[in-house]
Amino acid sequence: MPIRVTVWHEYRHEKRNEQVRKLYPDGMHQTLATYLKTLGGIEVRTATLDEPEHGLSQSIVDTTDVMLWWGHMAHAEVQDTIVSRVQSRVLAGMGLVVLHSGHHSKIFKRLMGTTCNLKWRDEGGREALFVTKPGHPILAGIDDHFVLEHEEMYGEYFDVPEPDELLLISSFSTGEVFRSCMTWQRGVGKIVYFRPGHETYPSYHNPQVLRIIGNAVRWAAPVDGGKVPEGCPNPSPDWLKTKPD
Amino acid sequence: MPIRVTVWHEYRHEKRNEQVRKLYPDGMHQTLATYLKTLGGIEVRTATLDEPEHGLSQSIVDTTDVMLWWGHMAHAEVQDTIVSRVQSRVLAGMGLVVLHSGHHSKIFKRLMGTTCNLKWRDEGGREALFVTKPGHPILAGIDDHFVLEHEEMYGEYFDVPEPDELLLISSFSTGEVFRSCMTWQRGVGKIVYFRPGHETYPSYHNPQVLRIIGNAVRWAAPVDGGKVPEGCPNPSPDWLKTKPD
Amino acid sequence: MPIRVTVWHEYRHEKRNEQVRKLYPDGMHQTLATYLKTLGGIEVRTATLDEPEHGLSQSIVDTTDVMLWWGHMAHAEVQDTIVSRVQSRVLAGMGLVVLHSGHHSKIFKRLMGTTCNLKWRDEGGREALFVTKPGHPILAGIDDHFVLEHEEMYGEYFDVPEPDELLLISSFSTGEVFRSCMTWQRGVGKIVYFRPGHETYPSYHNPQVLRIIGNAVRWAAPVDGGKVPEGCPNPSPDWLKTKPD
Amino acid sequence: MPIRVTVWHEYRHEKRNEQVRKLYPDGMHQTLATYLKTLGGIEVRTATLDEPEHGLSQSIVDTTDVMLWWGHMAHAEVQDTIVSRVQSRVLAGMGLVVLHSGHHSKIFKRLMGTTCNLKWRDEGGREALFVTKPGHPILAGIDDHFVLEHEEMYGEYFDVPEPDELLLISSFSTGEVFRSCMTWQRGVGKIVYFRPGHETYPSYHNPQVLRIIGNAVRWAAPVDGGKVPEGCPNPSPDWLKTKPD
Repeated sequence: MPIRVTVWHEYRHEKRNEQVRKLYPDGMHQTLATYLKTLGGIEVRTATLDEPEHGLSQSIVDTTDVMLWWGHMAHAEVQDTIVSRVQSRVLAGMGLVVLHSGHHSKIFKRLMGTTCNLKWRDEGGREALFVTKPGHPILAGIDDHFVLEHEEMYGEYFDVPEPDELLLISSFSTGEVFRSCMTWQRGVGKIVYFRPGHETYPSYHNPQVLRIIGNAVRWAAPVDGGKVPEGCPNPSPDWLKTKPD
Repeated sequence: MPIRVTVWHEYRHEKRNEQVRKLYPDGMHQTLATYLKTLGGIEVRTATLDEPEHGLSQSIVDTTDVMLWWGHMAHAEVQDTIVSRVQSRVLAGMGLVVLHSGHHSKIFKRLMGTTCNLKWRDEGGREALFVTKPGHPILAGIDDHFVLEHEEMYGEYFDVPEPDELLLISSFSTGEVFRSCMTWQRGVGKIVYFRPGHETYPSYHNPQVLRIIGNAVRWAAPVDGGKVPEGCPNPSPDWLKTKPD
Repeated sequence: MPIRVTVWHEYRHEKRNEQVRKLYPDGMHQTLATYLKTLGGIEVRTATLDEPEHGLSQSIVDTTDVMLWWGHMAHAEVQDTIVSRVQSRVLAGMGLVVLHSGHHSKIFKRLMGTTCNLKWRDEGGREALFVTKPGHPILAGIDDHFVLEHEEMYGEYFDVPEPDELLLISSFSTGEVFRSCMTWQRGVGKIVYFRPGHETYPSYHNPQVLRIIGNAVRWAAPVDGGKVPEGCPNPSPDWLKTKPD
Repeated sequence: MPIRVTVWHEYRHEKRNEQVRKLYPDGMHQTLATYLKTLGGIEVRTATLDEPEHGLSQSIVDTTDVMLWWGHMAHAEVQDTIVSRVQSRVLAGMGLVVLHSGHHSKIFKRLMGTTCNLKWRDEGGREALFVTKPGHPILAGIDDHFVLEHEEMYGEYFDVPEPDELLLISSFSTGEVFRSCMTWQRGVGKIVYFRPGHETYPSYHNPQVLRIIGNAVRWAAPVDGGKVPEGCPNPSPDWLKTKPD
């Protein structure tokens, strides 16, 4: 059974900014989708903000195993009903890979419960990403560190809940640090945040960045038998089939 | 400086159910407040659902260091603006101690990002609570386990994010188990969930239960210098006072 | 590439106790090996205490991806040099699945740094195991709980470090609870502890128990590129290939 | 009741290296002890490698609530029996604050179960330490970051178990990052690792570094009622005083 991926993208910067369009002529979502299609066992669709229901109809969401999310300038335009739809699906087991400025998306803030604020400054300096959990499946094929020559700076404190796993820490040429790859579980759904990907830099053409995104998709895919939690208002008085002595 | 505590209580069951009123003649909030006042270094106020703004005006919330929260039948009546006010204050450092059926309160679900569902059945059986993190300040004075003769059953899976700390696991006479004391941090605020306290049982007269609630208040109190995270939209280009070489 | 598994077993009880021999005529290790061989992509060897070097020569250890460990009455007979050999291999990436009374093995205590003590009593009561992390790969195919009619009791406090993940909590018919499936990482190696398997009960013939052990083997297998940490006394002055600006 | 602190120091560099002796004329242990004595509610002793039993007789260890540990060039000279003595006391509740090159001490490696290797290079560059858990008691009085103008570099991957809490991340002027303040619990004992303190730099005269060490001492002090875990070989058939129905 292939993993059914939906790459969701705000897709506004590419339409307005020539620099971005040169890097991602068909939009970042297409760049990411093209990469994911080269991997085996993955089916890929894309969805964007300006489509009806942001491309996230109930049937699309219900048949998505892992969703990628990139947004930045138009977080506020995402309808709350669609956010609730995606949240419910995550809690029921769908993986969610939140990229870069998606840290301030409604769906990420809803799942985290915090401001998701961070420090930032776009000076295009160097980002070096260091592995802090070698052997994690999301880091398969990644050495002890890798470098992006030009990226936007994100700095701590990043106001998110304590992650279940901290996989990468970035340092920037201006001296700041950032927890740049983390995972959380919410309900039965696995969530990954991965920092790189400012629209004016070619990070989604970098082999290590793409490798990590591909690994994250596989890692976040639902596991057979991971059940939607039952609960109120449907208590099950006889669920414990074998009664105690 | 004393810890300024606000005990928030739905305060409905006591008005309608004689059994509850016998256990808590002035309401659970008064029972809890009376206990907390016996501890040194704590100032206690109470607030209830049916007061204006649920007793949680901006000035009350702003001058609260730790809030306790008990609700059950009227979660839906809590206004969203008050929930947002309390959430902001938690993220800025206020401690929050959520009790029993408060697991389904708007404020707890908002901070957790999950359904907070669980299995439950009220048969009044025995609950035994076992320590899984001896030496934690919230468990000061508690032996390796303690027993409540009659309580409502809560069972796993409890749909909350992975806790930062798991302090107690309950077993019930019908065989189920439950993670019954856990902590999380959201923003700078410390959150404790503590399971016992069904309105028809005298759990808030139990010395160990009270001891844990008192300990939790002290543990969740803000720490000097725990700052509200700064962030977008106020980047600070010169915050790194000492520039790298 | 198949996962290369070595099932290590003390293999003493079966030789001395008819009740155990009836349950596991060729030893528990053969029962477990036979099951693992039915799964695809796994190669299985066994090794036992009374073989030379306990069956764990350097070449065997070096070519093992995941090791299972069951021991009980003869922990003290395991040579310290073999323990060190296994520990080094775990830190370099080998998975280790510690079963039942293996909690008191030298290798587990070495990796945990604690006493690994627990409460126990063998009355053959019922054990019910409840899922606390639905959707985890080790729990694939497992419902919200399952029951073993007869098992030895293990009770908290279990003196191990805070686990990276808590997957199952057991309750016993006598009322105690136990964290019965947990994971840790040490170095690059993944470690799983799984409680069931007292020698006088047929737990390793139970389909859910076997399913979890098989899942644990897959989960603990090394990931491509998970590197042995470099370190002192071999600093690498030029490892940061791209120098900061 | 005051917290009884023992500052343990290898105390070799000061005797051999004039640069170190200028910074710490009576040894680092005296500098640290002098600071701790300025805080209320703390009693301080010191102990050094070259004293009988390294200054850590059974009675000294038994009456210590929190031990600080700094070692570097002579880790191998610490006797294994003393290491075992300290380990047992940690598991029973004594706090342990491991400083800088103490990461490679026998006691720390014993408690961690890993190599505790890291990358390092001594070029005396700048270290900036960023808070990742604002509001933690160990960070009381610390702003969002602070800077040490000259320190040795330590870099990831630092081969320690996943910490219970990550409090500070350092960046160095050469671009590396390091998790520079972390906590773990082993048995009932609380362990803190804090990175700064290379012997040729004046880090233990820095007010923020001292503040954090003082905070760590308070945080790691034993809590009333945190019991030594009981366990094998002393099962307690009647420990569950209230039997289930």
